[in-house]
Amino acid sequence: MDFLEEPFPDVGTYEDFHTIDWLREKSRDTDRHRKITSKSKESIWEFIKSLLDAWSGWVVMLLIGLLAGTLAGVIDLAVDWMTDLKEGVCLSAFWYSHEQCCWTSNETTFEDRDKCPLWQKWSELLLSQSEGASAYILNYLMYILWALLFAFLAVSLVRVFAPYACGSGIPEIKTILSGFIIRGYLGKWTLLIKTVTLVLVVSSGLSLGKEGPLVHVACCCGNFFSSLFSKYSKNEGKRREVLSAAAAAGVSVAFGAPIGGVLFSLEEVSYYFPLKTLWRSFFAALVAAFTLRSINPFGNSRLVLFYVEYHTPWRRKTTRLGRYPVLEVIAVTAVTAIVAYPNPYTRQSTSELISELFNDCGALESSQLCDYINDPNMTRPVDDIPDRPAGVGVYTAMWQLALALIFKIVITIFTFGMKIPSGLFIPSMAVGAMAGRMVGIGVEQLAYHHHDWIIFRNWCRPGADCVTPGLYAMVGAAACLGGVTRMTVSLVVIMFELTGGLEYIVPLMAAAVTSKWVADAFGKEGIYEAHIHLNGYPFLDVKDEFTHRTLATDVMRPRRGEPPLSVLTQDSMTVEDVETLIKETDYNGFPVLVSRDSERLIGFAQRRELILAIKNARQRQEGIVSNSIMYFTEEPPELPANSPHPLKLRRILNLSPFTVTDHTPMETVVDIFRKLGLRQCLVTRSGRLLGIITKKDVLRHMAQMANQDPESIMFN
Amino acid sequence: MDFLEEPFPDVGTYEDFHTIDWLREKSRDTDRHRKITSKSKESIWEFIKSLLDAWSGWVVMLLIGLLAGTLAGVIDLAVDWMTDLKEGVCLSAFWYSHEQCCWTSNETTFEDRDKCPLWQKWSELLLSQSEGASAYILNYLMYILWALLFAFLAVSLVRVFAPYACGSGIPEIKTILSGFIIRGYLGKWTLLIKTVTLVLVVSSGLSLGKEGPLVHVACCCGNFFSSLFSKYSKNEGKRREVLSAAAAAGVSVAFGAPIGGVLFSLEEVSYYFPLKTLWRSFFAALVAAFTLRSINPFGNSRLVLFYVEYHTPWRRKTTRLGRYPVLEVIAVTAVTAIVAYPNPYTRQSTSELISELFNDCGALESSQLCDYINDPNMTRPVDDIPDRPAGVGVYTAMWQLALALIFKIVITIFTFGMKIPSGLFIPSMAVGAMAGRMVGIGVEQLAYHHHDWIIFRNWCRPGADCVTPGLYAMVGAAACLGGVTRMTVSLVVIMFELTGGLEYIVPLMAAAVTSKWVADAFGKEGIYEAHIHLNGYPFLDVKDEFTHRTLATDVMRPRRGEPPLSVLTQDSMTVEDVETLIKETDYNGFPVLVSRDSERLIGFAQRRELILAIKNARQRQEGIVSNSIMYFTEEPPELPANSPHPLKLRRILNLSPFTVTDHTPMETVVDIFRKLGLRQCLVTRSGRLLGIITKKDVLRHMAQMANQDPESIMFN
Repeated sequence: MDFLEEPFPDVGTYEDFHTIDWLREKSRDTDRHRKITSKSKESIWEFIKSLLDAWSGWVVMLLIGLLAGTLAGVIDLAVDWMTDLKEGVCLSAFWYSHEQCCWTSNETTFEDRDKCPLWQKWSELLLSQSEGASAYILNYLMYILWALLFAFLAVSLVRVFAPYACGSGIPEIKTILSGFIIRGYLGKWTLLIKTVTLVLVVSSGLSLGKEGPLVHVACCCGNFFSSLFSKYSKNEGKRREVLSAAAAAGVSVAFGAPIGGVLFSLEEVSYYFPLKTLWRSFFAALVAAFTLRSINPFGNSRLVLFYVEYHTPWRRKTTRLGRYPVLEVIAVTAVTAIVAYPNPYTRQSTSELISELFNDCGALESSQLCDYINDPNMTRPVDDIPDRPAGVGVYTAMWQLALALIFKIVITIFTFGMKIPSGLFIPSMAVGAMAGRMVGIGVEQLAYHHHDWIIFRNWCRPGADCVTPGLYAMVGAAACLGGVTRMTVSLVVIMFELTGGLEYIVPLMAAAVTSKWVADAFGKEGIYEAHIHLNGYPFLDVKDEFTHRTLATDVMRPRRGEPPLSVLTQDSMTVEDVETLIKETDYNGFPVLVSRDSERLIGFAQRRELILAIKNARQRQEGIVSNSIMYFTEEPPELPANSPHPLKLRRILNLSPFTVTDHTPMETVVDIFRKLGLRQCLVTRSGRLLGIITKKDVLRHMAQMANQDPESIMFN
Repeated sequence: MDFLEEPFPDVGTYEDFHTIDWLREKSRDTDRHRKITSKSKESIWEFIKSLLDAWSGWVVMLLIGLLAGTLAGVIDLAVDWMTDLKEGVCLSAFWYSHEQCCWTSNETTFEDRDKCPLWQKWSELLLSQSEGASAYILNYLMYILWALLFAFLAVSLVRVFAPYACGSGIPEIKTILSGFIIRGYLGKWTLLIKTVTLVLVVSSGLSLGKEGPLVHVACCCGNFFSSLFSKYSKNEGKRREVLSAAAAAGVSVAFGAPIGGVLFSLEEVSYYFPLKTLWRSFFAALVAAFTLRSINPFGNSRLVLFYVEYHTPWRRKTTRLGRYPVLEVIAVTAVTAIVAYPNPYTRQSTSELISELFNDCGALESSQLCDYINDPNMTRPVDDIPDRPAGVGVYTAMWQLALALIFKIVITIFTFGMKIPSGLFIPSMAVGAMAGRMVGIGVEQLAYHHHDWIIFRNWCRPGADCVTPGLYAMVGAAACLGGVTRMTVSLVVIMFELTGGLEYIVPLMAAAVTSKWVADAFGKEGIYEAHIHLNGYPFLDVKDEFTHRTLATDVMRPRRGEPPLSVLTQDSMTVEDVETLIKETDYNGFPVLVSRDSERLIGFAQRRELILAIKNARQRQEGIVSNSIMYFTEEPPELPANSPHPLKLRRILNLSPFTVTDHTPMETVVDIFRKLGLRQCLVTRSGRLLGIITKKDVLRHMAQMANQDPESIMFN
């Protein structure tokens, strides 16, 4: 009788911009697993299939690691080449970057490793001049032109082919991982366009980083590979386990920090992170880091970039330019290129800048920042260079750094949120590193000139390096990044994987804790949470604490004065009644009661499955007409003799809907929604159905209470 | 009317060996928080009090970090001294260890840094002989005597003063953190005795480590400090947040690995680990590591020991010796001391052994393991020592290592589970490191003699170190530890915090993943889970997956044929009825129904609170007699005119008991119990109460299903 024994198409999928039901997904996966296990005893072939199924998780991780590592390596190489293309071209092979070009040249010496005849600046190539005003102007113009070209290409590609490729993607990925469906956000087009445009925007010299977008790219890889295995493609819950691991692989290649990647995914990105996912993330991150290391032909880059996402919601929402995304990108790029070129600290790529700021002044360092005055009377070893008076170069560098700092802060605010792939890790780190280096140099010179001050006396014994400006830069970068994202453990791990400075764990931890405290005093939300709220995604943050004394009865619908809840009865409504109900309401599902009088709940039916079931029954089952009675019980109800064939729908009835009593405190309800990943929950009193609470009701209520609260503190 | 408006004593506490209700604890904390917030607007003083309350979490962390770091430092110093006491004594000051004694001596040269006249072996002191058979025998005897004395003292102290101080404590702490109450397990006596006996057993040279017990010690500190703040002492849920952070501080000082400590607490120990606890753990671990580093006067110990807990349930349960714990300890100590003394690799402390095995053979290395034959014809720099043929010393070392390996494996099995504080990290690492070093030397010599083999050809170019035996030892240690505990991420982080070898991340990760796969093939349980199951603690493991197709109705009580569920009605039972019910049953609580006929549920009353309430009412409220009607409704029921005064108990009624329907799959029920930390859950069908499922029912059912399953695979 129950034709629904055979599943019909599309059952169990979700619509776009809807939330998944974690408990249901989990239970569906268990069913699948049980089927395979029981089948595996039937034949050797089924047994092998069950083994393959069990290992498919690890296989997917391997594939994700390989592809994410490869893409990151290709992006790195392409960015290197295109960044140098803004300044000049290699004559031996135009696809060589400056460094590769001079490496292959025999005429390069170690001191002049930046100069070789094969590498020609645009002014040398076009005007045969390498110095002078006209050469400078030509180089300046070429720099701006290339930057504008790259930026224009990028924004056009994003606009035409993949609008979802813009931004960093981390807030959206957080939302998706929490159970939201955004179709196409992790699709193949997004993957392709985001990879290409990422190269373009980073090369254009805009104040943005590539780490956030790389996490998005890795998640697209994860989505692609999970679509190859039915275990993951048909279950939205399982798919999200793969995506969490893919996010870890993305951070792993973005920063060259496999452990940091796993922790970042755990601390910042993921929602449901069982230990199994931890192990798999670990494996994916390992493979990805290994692949990237094998590809990178330079082998020099410990600092593989670190993207931070800066956000300025108050600006972005009101900008007029925002309505013309292409124009906005061109304008910001033009300003960036024009202002950035004259200052060496803004002209070079941000990751090079960070690397220079972190560096200590060794004997062979040619940086301006290391221009200290050598005292010929002092007989000190060569490797003990600092703790000397600053030379002219250092003072120049200080001014340039100060200007670069202001410019970087301002332009990053404008850059972030444009319709191109952009991350905030690197710009944030750069800002922190510049400020840190400047403070470091200041303290160093103070210590040099005032050796007798109490704070320096015990600490700076003669001959010892008492102040390392590079360490100040590193701590500054960590603090700034920590303030923006509110990461703690993953921040420290990423920082020391990035710099190899395991001995600096204590200052880094102190910086992470302090920046978190200070930033939390201004507002509890990190950049990703702020973005999620700004975009109004239905994200139930684990970090928000709900401490208000409201009860389920205050939140459930129907409220007082509202029409009663739309419900189904178990064996007295006709097909037409139900179709009318579906047409007139837009609820995602309906509670099923024994009868309207008793109000006793027996289950819950999803709107989507009701529609599909009725449609299927009308097409495939004979005798189903508008007057047919629909029943959810095991046995058909007793009907008058002449009544049409009834329709059995027990198969689509969820017999274990989640219920709470009307007296349940909302904090418990919030906890249940968070931890069990519910879509909705029914409210009862003494066994009678009173109302319903959906995830959106919970979010709305939390927002209301949060808005009430500051007022009550301030004005009462 | 409701005298229960004023709370009466002991309400809200739990009995020993009972499970806490996480949702209730959380809700109680929210109430407290709300009260403080609303009071804080009344006066400046209340405002300051609310600030203090908000910061008390960080203060507790600071105190725990300081005390745990101090204790670990003191233990380290005491162990150093007492370990050396087994071999000799310092004449200038008997409380100096060998190293301290010779450091303070002026006659010590760098080559003979182990020898100085002030440090006298027992044979020198008593016989004035340093060589010869009689000196050897005297030293041997003194070694055994001291070891037996320390072990005897330790086991006696544990037996008499603090039986809970034995073992590593990690399985029990896991159970406590999951919500179980074991009174006294984290008490002050345990703290004191465990600290003292830990020094004794480590000094006695038994094959055990101090890391697990240090975690227990840190948790005792956490428990002590949380009892000073009512926010934590009165709320079992909040207290467990502090304990999770304390566990992190314990690992932090045990291994000198603050990040690893946080991850260990997250991955292995904790049950409920919100992000707030992550940040606090991070802070506590930081303070603890910093304190330990400030105390340690040597400044040399990166390897601050790493305790592993080895377990051999199949043996321990049946040993006859186990009935005589003191005798057992004495016997095992005697065997350990007698066998360990002649072999240099078992005589030295295990952490020294690990350190030696990890070390590379530098130019100044005097270890037997570095006795390579120098080829005078080869002109190679000094720091490029390996890749040479092994000398006699290396071959001797190989034999001694092989014997030490066998001994260590056997004796660790016997040591673990004795009634003394003991950990398994260090012994496991030692076993892995010995095996790894031996394999490493083997491969190294193979590569030296067969440079032309394909695998060595590309890899071992002339002049390059192609094999580093120390790295093999490190990877071996990680793999062995990973196999025993099944840690992954925290293992790798601890290993590289321990060794500073950030560049070995990839081999370490590969070792961690491989050892996990191989070990999981033999059985899914790590050592801590095995111990928990062995002891039958009510621990609902997050790692176990429940995939059986059973429903709530299969697990709930009453089963078929059992007497009906003991319930209360809302307004028709007398005090005497309830007292009889309480006397005749031992359930933790009773569902409250509208009436026995309707079976509609209105709430749940705890046994303990019912008893307290009735006792209080009989003492303090007039007119309450055995015939008084008890009611849980807002208004008293209508009673005949001459009936005695009724007793209102609404205050103790939990109006939001957790319910599921009888059709709910057990996997969902297990998930709910795990994630929400429930004690019990009521089962309903269409609003009628059918039965109850407690945490113990769930655990029993899971064990049953797990037992059925392997059989069904093997024999069907």
